[in-house]
Amino acid sequence: MTIKLALDAMGGDYAPSEIIEGAKEACKENPDIEVILLGEPSRLPDNLPKKIKVKACGQSIGMHEPAAKAVKTKKDSSIVIGPKLVKAGEADAFISAGNTGAVMASALLGLGRIKGIDRPAIAVTLPTASKPVVLLDAGANPDCKPANLLQFAMLGSTFSQKVLGIKNPSIGLLNIGQEKGKGDDLVKLTHDLLEQSSLNFYGNIEGQDVSSGTTDIVVCDGFIGNVVLKTMEGLASVMFKELKNVINATTVNKVGGILLASSLKKLQTRLNQDTYGGTHLLGVNGVCIIGHGSSKRTAIKNAIEVAKKSIKHGFIEKVKLEAHK
Amino acid sequence: MTIKLALDAMGGDYAPSEIIEGAKEACKENPDIEVILLGEPSRLPDNLPKKIKVKACGQSIGMHEPAAKAVKTKKDSSIVIGPKLVKAGEADAFISAGNTGAVMASALLGLGRIKGIDRPAIAVTLPTASKPVVLLDAGANPDCKPANLLQFAMLGSTFSQKVLGIKNPSIGLLNIGQEKGKGDDLVKLTHDLLEQSSLNFYGNIEGQDVSSGTTDIVVCDGFIGNVVLKTMEGLASVMFKELKNVINATTVNKVGGILLASSLKKLQTRLNQDTYGGTHLLGVNGVCIIGHGSSKRTAIKNAIEVAKKSIKHGFIEKVKLEAHK
Repeated sequence: MTIKLALDAMGGDYAPSEIIEGAKEACKENPDIEVILLGEPSRLPDNLPKKIKVKACGQSIGMHEPAAKAVKTKKDSSIVIGPKLVKAGEADAFISAGNTGAVMASALLGLGRIKGIDRPAIAVTLPTASKPVVLLDAGANPDCKPANLLQFAMLGSTFSQKVLGIKNPSIGLLNIGQEKGKGDDLVKLTHDLLEQSSLNFYGNIEGQDVSSGTTDIVVCDGFIGNVVLKTMEGLASVMFKELKNVINATTVNKVGGILLASSLKKLQTRLNQDTYGGTHLLGVNGVCIIGHGSSKRTAIKNAIEVAKKSIKHGFIEKVKLEAHK
Repeated sequence: MTIKLALDAMGGDYAPSEIIEGAKEACKENPDIEVILLGEPSRLPDNLPKKIKVKACGQSIGMHEPAAKAVKTKKDSSIVIGPKLVKAGEADAFISAGNTGAVMASALLGLGRIKGIDRPAIAVTLPTASKPVVLLDAGANPDCKPANLLQFAMLGSTFSQKVLGIKNPSIGLLNIGQEKGKGDDLVKLTHDLLEQSSLNFYGNIEGQDVSSGTTDIVVCDGFIGNVVLKTMEGLASVMFKELKNVINATTVNKVGGILLASSLKKLQTRLNQDTYGGTHLLGVNGVCIIGHGSSKRTAIKNAIEVAKKSIKHGFIEKVKLEAHK
């Protein structure tokens, strides 16, 4: 069976060229996929490989356009058409590195929610010391209720099993203390719900546990999740910049830097989120991946491969089963 | 005028030896201070320098004892006696690397709040790419109202001016988007209050702005602040560990590491929070510094010097003026 992936050619800072290159690389390495490239025909090249088809779209949604309005008015844009193709069964997944808010709104409208999931969440796979950790919600829901966080835990657990291949993944509730009874009302009530659930609940975790990989999944509301994610991105970037400055500071340091260069490059790649192919909108009735706006070809290729895994391993079907329990 | 600093000799993982060494170093470098060492006499050495006096205390509060109960029952412990000395005018500040919750509870009881401040906040000075940034609240208040965050902004601004010597420090409100109107109700209402205030309000900032130093002050509730702080500590620690692994991986890398060693050590020191001498409990009626539990002599020395600055530059008096505006 060929897996058909609808890819937004217009989304992201390096669209369409890097998006197309990513699609080409993915097709080369994955004989079982086909890419449907969504975009404005005038901005797409003619000489595409056979496994990349074009679906012509109208005017695209810009990276910084107000999301709700853009989705309402630009009905023939790549971001609006993508989820509809998935809904209609013409594609198996939608991938975009475009305007996050617009992709979310359009996926919600076009795909709808899975029954039993009140609010879809953004899940991001973070590289940590020892393994990938799934953090959710990373920004879709700034205000949450305990029942939402419980559903996020189930979504994250299913994702971790089906897409990352982790058996019986452990769930940590992000809090400001390890003991039960710590934190605000939201986490206290969520703690009770998670304890009563059939999920593999580890208990409360704290900020330092996110990057040390204490648990496979980190559950929190979308405000905290977004702040944590961006804080980590910011700090990692500052630290690599500082390291570069140290290396360039003296001739001796430069020599040291040259000797370490290839290993440091590998470390930077390993600690880069793009390695895990973007964020997933979990809880909508179809596979939807939102790449970083700065996605280049490798990030797009990785996103395509993660989408393929979600489909192959029946992620959506499994969530439907779990949500009905 | 000699500044008298009450120092908890019993608090922290390396107490009392590293605490005492920190006090000795501080006294050597600061002729204008005197240290009052609070601790159990049997655990303190006899041969202390003249500028370090001992105030005998009873049984100490452990690092992990439940705070409220410990403060109530161990009335002659160093943590309970310290703030009382400040209140009585026998000391100018209290410094402890002990049980954070107990120090907070004891400082609140012993010193009281400054009139006009509803809730004291924990302020931490973070090293960033270009300058120190003050983040508050870092954990004292998991649930906040907009008025609390406004007061935190004033406290942070006064601290930044008086203790860090920054003129007209800018204030960022930690949020999940830059535009006005983003986020939950708490930040939306706080945004309005800050805009109407006479403070130098920059606007909303996001996670990545914390470590890039977009503003001099980062304001948030104690839940977010605590998670952000611990996330940053955790990630920095993971990254330095990974760097060490890279350096030790091959012989060539090891040589590179040797060439870079002294510069990397300096970088690690610069990015270490201890450089700025612990966290401050702002809003109580007296200078109170809470060191990291892992504080060694340099962290203690730095904490003593920051306390001295707070006193010399009239931080408390300035807060009293601002709180009455």
